[in-house]
This record gives sequence, C-alpha cells and structure tokens, in this order.
Amino acid sequence: MEEVNTTRSRGFVEELIDQEDDFDRWYVDVVKRAELADDAPVRGCKVVRPYGYALWENFQASLDSRFKATGVQNAYFPMLIPQHMMEREAEHVEGFAPEVAWVTRGGKSDLEEPLAIRPTSEAIICSKLGEWVQSYRDLPIIVNQWCSVLRWENRPRAFLRTSEFLWQEGHTAHATAEEADQRARMMLDIYRDFLENELAIPVIPGVKSETEKFAGAVRTYTVEAMMGGKFWALQSGTSHYLGENFSKAFGIDFLDKDGERKFAHGTSWGLSQRTIGAVVMVHGDDAGLKLPPRVAPIQAVIIPIWRKEAERDGVEEHITRVTNALGDVRTFIDRRDDKTPGWKFNEWELRGVPLRIEVGPRDVQSGNAVVVRRDTREKKVVAIDQLEQVVADLLVEIQASLYTTALERQKAHTVPVTSLGELYDRAASNAGFSVASWCGGEACEATVKDASKATIRCLPFDQPSEHGPCIVCGKPGVTEAIFARAY
Amino acid sequence: MEEVNTTRSRGFVEELIDQEDDFDRWYVDVVKRAELADDAPVRGCKVVRPYGYALWENFQASLDSRFKATGVQNAYFPMLIPQHMMEREAEHVEGFAPEVAWVTRGGKSDLEEPLAIRPTSEAIICSKLGEWVQSYRDLPIIVNQWCSVLRWENRPRAFLRTSEFLWQEGHTAHATAEEADQRARMMLDIYRDFLENELAIPVIPGVKSETEKFAGAVRTYTVEAMMGGKFWALQSGTSHYLGENFSKAFGIDFLDKDGERKFAHGTSWGLSQRTIGAVVMVHGDDAGLKLPPRVAPIQAVIIPIWRKEAERDGVEEHITRVTNALGDVRTFIDRRDDKTPGWKFNEWELRGVPLRIEVGPRDVQSGNAVVVRRDTREKKVVAIDQLEQVVADLLVEIQASLYTTALERQKAHTVPVTSLGELYDRAASNAGFSVASWCGGEACEATVKDASKATIRCLPFDQPSEHGPCIVCGKPGVTEAIFARAY
Repeated sequence: MEEVNTTRSRGFVEELIDQEDDFDRWYVDVVKRAELADDAPVRGCKVVRPYGYALWENFQASLDSRFKATGVQNAYFPMLIPQHMMEREAEHVEGFAPEVAWVTRGGKSDLEEPLAIRPTSEAIICSKLGEWVQSYRDLPIIVNQWCSVLRWENRPRAFLRTSEFLWQEGHTAHATAEEADQRARMMLDIYRDFLENELAIPVIPGVKSETEKFAGAVRTYTVEAMMGGKFWALQSGTSHYLGENFSKAFGIDFLDKDGERKFAHGTSWGLSQRTIGAVVMVHGDDAGLKLPPRVAPIQAVIIPIWRKEAERDGVEEHITRVTNALGDVRTFIDRRDDKTPGWKFNEWELRGVPLRIEVGPRDVQSGNAVVVRRDTREKKVVAIDQLEQVVADLLVEIQASLYTTALERQKAHTVPVTSLGELYDRAASNAGFSVASWCGGEACEATVKDASKATIRCLPFDQPSEHGPCIVCGKPGVTEAIFARAY
Repeated sequence: MEEVNTTRSRGFVEELIDQEDDFDRWYVDVVKRAELADDAPVRGCKVVRPYGYALWENFQASLDSRFKATGVQNAYFPMLIPQHMMEREAEHVEGFAPEVAWVTRGGKSDLEEPLAIRPTSEAIICSKLGEWVQSYRDLPIIVNQWCSVLRWENRPRAFLRTSEFLWQEGHTAHATAEEADQRARMMLDIYRDFLENELAIPVIPGVKSETEKFAGAVRTYTVEAMMGGKFWALQSGTSHYLGENFSKAFGIDFLDKDGERKFAHGTSWGLSQRTIGAVVMVHGDDAGLKLPPRVAPIQAVIIPIWRKEAERDGVEEHITRVTNALGDVRTFIDRRDDKTPGWKFNEWELRGVPLRIEVGPRDVQSGNAVVVRRDTREKKVVAIDQLEQVVADLLVEIQASLYTTALERQKAHTVPVTSLGELYDRAASNAGFSVASWCGGEACEATVKDASKATIRCLPFDQPSEHGPCIVCGKPGVTEAIFARAY
C-alpha cells in the first residue's frame, strides 16, 4: 500500500487557502471545489450541484416532516405576480421594489401589465386566502410552498446571496392575534430545533428591531447564528407575525362565531438555502467542509485500497461485508481507478464526509476495517461484527461534537459591552457578537450601523430582568440587543 | 342515525354535471370542487391547492426513488436563461420562441439582455455540462430537477395546460449514441411503469413522428394514455434522444479513451403535473374523482356518526381502535360538526378517497366498522380485528380494478382503420384511437390533422411484421401509427 500521510495530507489535492488568511475566499473556494455549487451564466445566480442539492433534500425532508406534524399543508402558487397586486400592501412593495425582476413580454407581445417574479409570495397567496376564507370554520389556513424566489442581486455569493434562491415559505391565517402569534413563534422554534439538532448550529432566537423587520410585518422573529472565521452573524430563519396588515390589504375577513365580520391575523415564515452556507461556515476548517452526519448526503465513504490486481477481489468481497454491516448508513464506495487512495482521502475530507472507511488487504486478513473521523481525524481499527455499532455511535458523537464546538465558539465570542468604543472595536476586528442595552430608538441603531456596519441582529427572547443605560444615547435601556456584522 | 341514501347520494352536495353531458365542464368543475386546483389571478396560471399538491408529492416520491435507483442525481439550475443562450440551438429556439416569457427589467433598471424564464432547461444545463465534461471519466452525467417551467398560454386548463407548470426534467450526457439512446428508453420505461403501477393508467409507448418530436431532438419517445369521456389522448411523459445537437451547440466534448475528442450524446426527459389531469380524466365518474390507492393523499376517510351527544365518546373510542388497526394506511377523520354524514359521504366521493369507513353507535356495540369502496360503492361490515387485512386487500384490489377498467376501455376504443373516411368519422365522434398504416410522409400526416384535428400520437414500439398501404396516399406503409385527438 502506498504511503499516505493522513495527518497532513492536503498536499494531494490543490490546497485551499487557510481560513484565517482569507475566510471569504476560503468559503468561495470550498463551495466550488466540494461541488456544492458552481457559477451560472446568468447574472446574480448560481447552479446548485448534485452534492449541494442532496444536502438541501435532506434539509427539506427533515423540516417538512416537522412542518406536517404541526398541520402544515404544502401547495403551489404561481411565481408571477401582477404589479397591481404587489402594490396592495404599501410597506411590502416599498421594501421589495428595488429587488424585483419584471416580466414585460410574453411570446412575441408586450404585456399590458408587468408581472413580478415573486420575491416572496404574501401578495399572491393572500389574494387567494381572501377568497377561501369566509367563516371562522375556514380557519386556520396553514400552507407552505417549497420553491425558488428572486431578488435582484449584483454581487452573488453561493447560497448566501443569489438573485434566485431556493427556500420554503409558509403562510397562515388565523381567527385571533394570539393564535397567529403562537404559530409564528412555533415555526421559529421549529427552525431553532432544526438548526440545532440537524445542522448542529446553535442559534439565538429573538425579535428583530423595527428597522430590520420584514416589510409588511408587525413583528419579525429570527434565529441568528454565529459563523466561523470572522464570527459574523447569519440570519438563519425568520417568522413574521403580520397582524391584519395583509388581511386588510387583501380582504381576508370572516364571519366569526359571534356573528361579527373580522379580519384574519396572518403569519409568514421562511428558511432558505442560506442554511447550506451556514453549515459550510460554522463547521468547516482549513481542510474543507465538515458535514453534520444527520444531513450529510454521504455519511461514510468507503475507500478500497490494493496494490496488486490479485488483491482486488478480496478487497471487494470485504467491502460487501462492510456495507452489509452498515445497513441504513448512507455510504458511497469510491472505486475510481485514476485517483490514489491519498487523493481520495483528501477529496472526501474537503467534501466533509463525516467518516472514511478504508478497506485494504490487511483488513481482509484481519476481518477489520479502518474508520477515520473527519472532525478529529481519529483512526480506529474496527472488527466487522462491531462495525455497525461503532459507526452508529461515531455518527452520533460527531453530530454532538460539531454542535458543542460551535456552541463554545458562540459563547466565547458573545460579550457584553458598555461603551460604544468597545462595540466599534469589536465590529472592526471581527470579534463576534456584542451584547448591549438599547433604548429602542432608531437613531441610536442607525448611529451604530453608520459607524461600524454592525446591526442589531436581534433582541433575544432571553432578557435580563433589568437594563443599563442605552449604549448609544445613555438614556434608560428597554431591552438587551445583539450587535454584529452580518452576511 | 339520519337516513342516508348511499346509492344515489349526490344530492347532498351541489351536483356535478354528468360526464356524458359535457366532459370538459365536468373536468373543470371536479378539479375545482375537489380542491385540487383553483384559478389564479395571473393570466394562464392556476393555484395547486393542498389536496392537489399532496397528490403531486406522492407522484414525486414514487418517481424520484425510481430515478435514483438508476443513478439519477437531483440538482437545481437557474430559471433565467440569457437570450443568446436560448438561441444557440436553432431548432430549439424556433420551437419555443412563441411561448417564452421575457424578463426585461431588474429592480429599477432595464436589462442589457432579456432573460427568458425557462420553458425547459436544455440550454442552461448544457452550457454547464460543456464546462464539467472534459474526459470520458466525467461521463455519464445524469441530472434531474424538480421545478416549474413557463410556456405562455392563453387558455389555461388546470394541470393540462397552464403557463407555469410543475414538472421534472432530466438531462444526461453520454460517451456513445447507444448508451444515450438506452438511457432515453430506460426513462420512458420508468414513466410507463409509474403510470401503470402507481396511477393505474395503461399507456402505449412509442416514438413521435418528426413533426411531433421535441424541438432539438433526434428522436422523441412518448407514452400516450387514453382519457375517459371523449377518449382523447394525453401525452403523459416524453423522453428525447438529442444526439449531438446540443453537445455541438454548447461544446460538450470530451477526450475519449482512444485519445480522440468527441461530442457527447444527450438525452432529456420530462413528466409533468399533466399526469394529475390524467388521473382525473381516466378514473373519474359522475360522482367525482377516483384516486388510485397507491398515490391517494387519503386512502381511507373515517366518518364518525352519532345522533345523541351521549354516543360521541363511545364512537371516538372506537375510532381510536380503528386507526390503531389501520397502522400505515393514510387516514383522515372528518370530525366537522356542521356537516351531516351524508354530506361528507358525497364530498369524499367527489374527492376520490378510495375507502370510506363509517363508525357509528351500532359499530361500537358490535365491534365492527362499515367499509365502503369508492369505485364500486360495495359495502362491508368488518370486525375490528379483521380490519387491517381487509383494508390492505381492498386497497390492492381497487388499484388493480382501476387499472383493468382503464385498460379495457383503452382496448375497446383502439380500432384498426383502413379508410380516411373511417378515421375522420372516428375523430369527429370522439371514438378513440385509430390505428393505421402510414408511409412516413409529413404531407399525409398534415392532411389528416387539417381534416380531422387528429394527430399521430405515436408509432408504437409494438409493430406488426407487415404494413398495409398508407391510409392517406396509398403508397406502401412503413409503420403503424396511432391517430387521435389529444389534449
């Protein structure tokens, strides 16, 4: 067997730049070289390649079952929205107008009215809810769609910021404000649960400031995650309580039990392929991706190793024993004959597969397999009859370890600050999340943003009982806020 | 218990028009009233409602697992295609130009180059395959995407013909013509298998004529199904062997084992939400839909029945026994208290649920449940401990029976014809498929179409050993063709 240096083996594939040298460049390179995404020949867009899409499919399956368990029904609404309909809710259209792509020609003719490609679907969905909802018996309505939306973007970055992106958007209508708000919070909690338990990404749940809330919402809830490298924030999912704003604009009213006509209370909530970017940035290291086992398209890659052709059949037979032992584990056998085992080790590390299983002539003789963790690079020689249990345990352990590592980082780089100077220094030096008291004033929020590019990521649900003076104006604080740079 | 007339119970809900009085109107009404789809406030589009979308999700799951078993990988490519790229394959752009919607404005600015909303994605996908394929080792590439596409449509009909529609489109590149053609046929056979075994729709597989083939293909394979009512054809899935047409236009070439540079051979294949329309039209009757059990969102609807409030708890307890007994069967308990059992019977018949299970006080006492088939309306009193087996058997039986009924109709209305008069009469009287010899000439094909609106649906794979004279010109026939009106 050829000599493979598994402790410093990156030399076999073209090296990535180290994260600390240029985190943004590392991100772009690893996304492309791991074949998650590729450039598209359309401004602002990217292609989601099979490996990236397989990840998204696992996200979808996992979120969708959580949704359905709470009564969500999937549906599909047209992607084109007539201009007059986009304009019905005033704040909404003002917020989205700069980003909308317009269809003005169909076939050979100019259209009488331009059609927007949905940047989000409140307008078209609410126009139908207005027809479907007549009585309290028709409520609640809880629909969701998995689709792509389009928001014009000049400087795309794969998954994080592209003109067209994949997401899910849920839309609901309820008889009361309380029920709607509960639904909005319930969906945020599903996002938290999904991010923490499937993607191993700890998040801080909270409320957006008025400035940062969704265009047309009464209140926006958010889960904010800390990325690796620069410790910036990534808004990872949002859920909006829309009050009666869209109901009034689109006539979603109903005859209530008490015989009165009332407007329904709405919510909407979305989580997008940005979360793929989050997985890359939270868990990745200088060797590439580290995918959480629960969502990894390949949980264990099997690398056959032989020097002489005569060893091949034995190795293949042994691989059959290995895959039989592994049952439901998502495996892939890399049989390419133009790549060395060392090259494959590096490539699958780059692509973030949680476990590598090496099968060589020595393993055939001993009845073992060599199992290597992606996260710690720890190596174990495992007997075939132990393999199922060991692999199952390791996958659980890696999932937990990724989460713990991310949580420790988040805690280590979330720091209370009491002076603007400190806040600005931390923003300038990519030091992480700064926690400060805030008076609730938009002017104070704008001051910080203009000076440091740090924004209020959220007002965490978890608040102290008392607040110090506002970090900007010194007046009494009404809430604690998390300030950070964000993607 | 109130009196319910289950043999002629349609009176409880607003009646559908009978199929034989106006099949097209019946289709439109049943689609809307069963809540499969609804009108959209955008020209040419429809909303796919939760019940219709749940059906589509079952189609997707069932097709997707078949795809993946043959090595298909899902991916996602941008929906916008620059005009110059659409124009690279000459026949392709000519075929689609009249149907394309164009984005000409992004945000507040006019675009330098119009962007097409994909009518299909050969252009953009092939432009990437050109980059990804360098060596024979990169082949085959077998990708698929589940997405919506847009082809401008002025007279929409839900599922069958809408501007935007949901589908899957697969795209592949291969080293040889043989391998590509095999893949195209393999995917057609997956469509046939899916249609016959999941949707209970028999199909006739074959080849399209030159006139009817996909714009840019060398050869188009199709599966054609006969609908109920007017016995028209519905093209239910197509698979194209593209030869080197797109490879040459988009530079998909590779260095082969023999050291020569060659163009890859392509395929593409798609199946759309039209198949939902097919399920409606093949199996439905005057009372509404009949959904095949394997894809029905609800396989058994449970109707609680009581007269006195005191009976309610007992019925509910018995329903728990029923649902426990049914295990994995997809059930729904209709507990609405503002509808009578009779009204519910009719509504769930309209919505095509294969089995209805009635649970009333008498069943509580006897330890039974009443099971009613949607297709035959046959009623069985079943003991709870037999229920699992009886329901499982009935679902299999209904699935088989729907298929057999459809196949018998297809056979009964597929008739060999030897004179043009007979062919035209059959087309004019909606008599079904006419099988005739054809010389292969486009002029003869056009003659029939102009005179009768019947088109060649396919040249079936299953051909007789000898052919009579062409039904139009009388010259020697080279193939048997199926002529029919089509949706």
